Amino acid sequence: MVETARRREIEDVASSLFRERGYAGTSVRDIARAMDIQGASLYAHVASKQDVLRAIVERMASRFEHAADDAISGLPSEDTGDATPTARLAALTRAHVEVVTDDLERATVFVHEWRSLEPDLRARMAKRRDAYERRFRAVIVDGVESGEFATVDPTAAAAFILTALNGLVAWYRPDGRLAAGTIADLYADLAVRAAVGTDEVGR
Amino acid sequence: MVETARRREIEDVASSLFRERGYAGTSVRDIARAMDIQGASLYAHVASKQDVLRAIVERMASRFEHAADDAISGLPSEDTGDATPTARLAALTRAHVEVVTDDLERATVFVHEWRSLEPDLRARMAKRRDAYERRFRAVIVDGVESGEFATVDPTAAAAFILTALNGLVAWYRPDGRLAAGTIADLYADLAVRAAVGTDEVGR
Repeated sequence: MVETARRREIEDVASSLFRERGYAGTSVRDIARAMDIQGASLYAHVASKQDVLRAIVERMASRFEHAADDAISGLPSEDTGDATPTARLAALTRAHVEVVTDDLERATVFVHEWRSLEPDLRARMAKRRDAYERRFRAVIVDGVESGEFATVDPTAAAAFILTALNGLVAWYRPDGRLAAGTIADLYADLAVRAAVGTDEVGR
Repeated sequence: MVETARRREIEDVASSLFRERGYAGTSVRDIARAMDIQGASLYAHVASKQDVLRAIVERMASRFEHAADDAISGLPSEDTGDATPTARLAALTRAHVEVVTDDLERATVFVHEWRSLEPDLRARMAKRRDAYERRFRAVIVDGVESGEFATVDPTAAAAFILTALNGLVAWYRPDGRLAAGTIADLYADLAVRAAVGTDEVGR
């Protein structure tokens, strides 16, 4: 129990430092110093800096996945089947934005530093990120098939939308002009609009 | 002349390494080794690794700015004034995608590593990036005022669109399924659709 709380605290401090200075620019000593403990004490809780990064990135991957599950399962299904692609894309978008705004420091590390994972972990995380992106793609494919969305390229559209959502880590500020809930609404609109569109615009 | 070609070659090699291993994970020695020369010879051409990063990031910032200038000035103006916000947003988007796809390695370094610039340079680059983002925002403001775009938050919409465009560095492959020109078209559609929308969708 104490162990868990201490590890969580290490992750908090490390997330903040990784976000500010980058993973490569942060040492275990920096993390220990920011916690006002000795480096040796830190090693009682974590094996390495890479171990801390892995924990942060995996925790966030799980949060994004669970939030997406909950968002979809929480939608009112129509009598005839699943919720509409529009409702599902809006729900996925809102869920993603909520995780980013709720844990901005870890989300920033997830977005900017997952590439700093060692090759094996990085390859596994790349697959997990692909699977997550496929959720967006599948909804867009459904929307295109049902005629609800314009004939876009679902792969390009999903990548466009998801990277836009991740970009939020660069500008969201908890004390900023726009509240997290407002941004979730705005981004859900932008994502759905990008997918819905019409075939005439932009040409 | 020779000096310029050599520096350009150093930037090419460094861009490739920075993209693959990150700026922090690359040494001047790595760059020299990849060019099959001595580290000391490299220092005849560049002052430091930071000097190379600065050159790459500034070159790309200039390319993005000039491409945006050309995209707007190349639009046919209507008799009554400037090109429409829709045409301008599509042109800005296409120009951005073209720079990314034309120089993927430097663009990746620009997007992922500009934060690795030393504080003074980083602050100046942040201002330059803001000014660039304001071009997108200004077009969206115009479109909202003219009624051509839905009542979105122009700041959020510009950030959404621009980070989506930058996200292309993560998935564009010169030998991939989608040609650069196709992606430029798809992304212009997605950006314009996100901005145009209607007030009903996504709620």
